[in-house]
Amino acid sequence: MKLLKVLMAVASAGVMPQAGAQTRPAVPGYTYGQATLAKAPFTLADVAAIKKTLLFSDDDERALRQSQPILADQTEAILDVWYGFVASTPELVIFFGDRKTGAPDGAYLGAVRKRFALWISDTAEARFDQRWLDWQYELGLRHNKLKKNLTDQADSAPQVNFRYLSALTIPVTTTLKPFLAKKGASAADVEKMHAAWVKAVLLQTILWSYPYVKEGEF
Amino acid sequence: MKLLKVLMAVASAGVMPQAGAQTRPAVPGYTYGQATLAKAPFTLADVAAIKKTLLFSDDDERALRQSQPILADQTEAILDVWYGFVASTPELVIFFGDRKTGAPDGAYLGAVRKRFALWISDTAEARFDQRWLDWQYELGLRHNKLKKNLTDQADSAPQVNFRYLSALTIPVTTTLKPFLAKKGASAADVEKMHAAWVKAVLLQTILWSYPYVKEGEF
Repeated sequence: MKLLKVLMAVASAGVMPQAGAQTRPAVPGYTYGQATLAKAPFTLADVAAIKKTLLFSDDDERALRQSQPILADQTEAILDVWYGFVASTPELVIFFGDRKTGAPDGAYLGAVRKRFALWISDTAEARFDQRWLDWQYELGLRHNKLKKNLTDQADSAPQVNFRYLSALTIPVTTTLKPFLAKKGASAADVEKMHAAWVKAVLLQTILWSYPYVKEGEF
Repeated sequence: MKLLKVLMAVASAGVMPQAGAQTRPAVPGYTYGQATLAKAPFTLADVAAIKKTLLFSDDDERALRQSQPILADQTEAILDVWYGFVASTPELVIFFGDRKTGAPDGAYLGAVRKRFALWISDTAEARFDQRWLDWQYELGLRHNKLKKNLTDQADSAPQVNFRYLSALTIPVTTTLKPFLAKKGASAADVEKMHAAWVKAVLLQTILWSYPYVKEGEF
């Protein structure tokens, strides 16, 4: 399958996520924690309310952190599965397609993939502070037409439609589960880590939806 | 706990969901399938794309249908748990609060509860046709400021904020799981039914979000 090959071929050159966003390798467009980021229009109190609603507890925070070392050296394999899923879903691959030719844009896919690797580690890190909040806002803008393509100077679809953001919680966390089980954690701990990941990704996609939502309705 | 008592006291007078929306008992405001409903602005093709993205398969459809008879005579107990959760979460109970006094509006809670009972059965029924689509649109409008309170002539909060819609997928499906296990289904089948419910509720909350999303970004 040609398309799959293109997507697999963009595997990044060994980006190894480390603990702590401030110690991350320099990846173009990865601006987590930088002073240039706009302040998020939603607050830590908003996040607390969403966390309460989706039953996100201290146990979930611990489970996420437990997953960090488990996932660390499996990052490229996880990304292969995720990119394989996108490649086999025409409804999704268009968001990485060249606007003129329709073909998947390898450079764009590769650039996003490097940041995606860091996102796995950042999500597992489970820091919910103002820096994290501002970064979530930036990630939302980069899915929305306000900022999509800008980071990588891509000439691709102008936005990822709203309907896919929260929906992607399921493939991302379902395909993650076998990787959570690969390093000897108990079945109960794998369940806990998986449940925590579902909540953490859903929480993020809700925040990423902010730029899509009408004024005063978020 | 006084608030919990108020919420529990609104238990409806034995509404028993039956198979098929057209055979539902007459519940005020339950207009699923009625010609008065507006046509949904999203299409069956949109739903198919979301289903593909969140890995919703024929197996999930079967698992939902398997859950219908299991949940049927547990409906009131399930609603007690859900209403208990809302009662213990101030961030959520305000959506049922009287706008002037702030106190939970028992009549409003009771009216919604009767339709909530039918929603459990409708979700388990897993019919994804145009009638279902139009009903999803109506349910979205009833959470949004465009139509909230109108059905029950309530004087309550003007909208359920967007941030809570998809988030509620977690408490609804997490608290459902023990009920799925109470009628002798195998552990594997309970897992399958639970996973199908997560996808089905997330799918619906994405559709309900339509009125909140900016023109052209859904």
